[in-house]
Amino acid sequence: MGVLIVEHKLGFIHANAGIDRSNIDQEKDIVLLLPEDPDLSAKKLSESLSKHFKKNISVIITDTMGRPFRNGIVGFTIGSHNIECLIDERGNKDLYGNTLKFTQIAIADELAAASSLLMGQAAQKKPVVLISGYKFMQSDTANAKTLIRSEEEDLFR
Amino acid sequence: MGVLIVEHKLGFIHANAGIDRSNIDQEKDIVLLLPEDPDLSAKKLSESLSKHFKKNISVIITDTMGRPFRNGIVGFTIGSHNIECLIDERGNKDLYGNTLKFTQIAIADELAAASSLLMGQAAQKKPVVLISGYKFMQSDTANAKTLIRSEEEDLFR
Repeated sequence: MGVLIVEHKLGFIHANAGIDRSNIDQEKDIVLLLPEDPDLSAKKLSESLSKHFKKNISVIITDTMGRPFRNGIVGFTIGSHNIECLIDERGNKDLYGNTLKFTQIAIADELAAASSLLMGQAAQKKPVVLISGYKFMQSDTANAKTLIRSEEEDLFR
Repeated sequence: MGVLIVEHKLGFIHANAGIDRSNIDQEKDIVLLLPEDPDLSAKKLSESLSKHFKKNISVIITDTMGRPFRNGIVGFTIGSHNIECLIDERGNKDLYGNTLKFTQIAIADELAAASSLLMGQAAQKKPVVLISGYKFMQSDTANAKTLIRSEEEDLFR
């Protein structure tokens, strides 16, 4: 029993994530992997749900991860469709009219964390959470890859 | 204009956090710091709000932070009172009756991320979010220091 830090080929870097043995039958010699292309999975779900319910439904696919520096796992976004995952506040003004220089908000990760509170991690059997009332930006072309920081831009490494 | 990775004396490690010049008057030569003892501030707020409203009110104080490996900032917890920040699912069973070995959930950080969606980062003027309906564990002694991973236990370092 150990802990692994894994860089997934999709670009995610986590402790104990991406390969899961919980919530599957451990009598069988199998593990649970991430979707091969989470953004594509989100796109397919978004399109088929939108068609079925005759509404414009955006989709976020989440997992939970361990983090550097902090204890406990939190929900985050591995794939998405029809939602801007990152809101760029750079250039906008704060309360005093000062221009924000750095602020980009990972709203898809915040929505993932919020939904994770309702989904739970053990035997809650709540794989889907419906988010309503939150004003997000739709986008046909946005996906969750925008949330992955390139190695060159990552000062933490 | 640069980016700093800062280890705050309170134990937080972030990019561009802990010392803020946004949402203050930049004509004055001042910066905005974190509370000196965020758990104590949360305790005082919790006690005075509980007294005023004659209800048992728990408090989470949040900030937003940049993260390793991922783009965008998210809300997280810097101080708290009367809420277990970390839910320990270790020893509990999953859907198949398997015992969870690692799972501790940083629910205070997930609540902070959820509330951050409503607070915004620019000129929204929403410094307080009321969370209701979420079943958390109350605790007189719990605080947000449980969310900070000790250097010895941090495989990412």
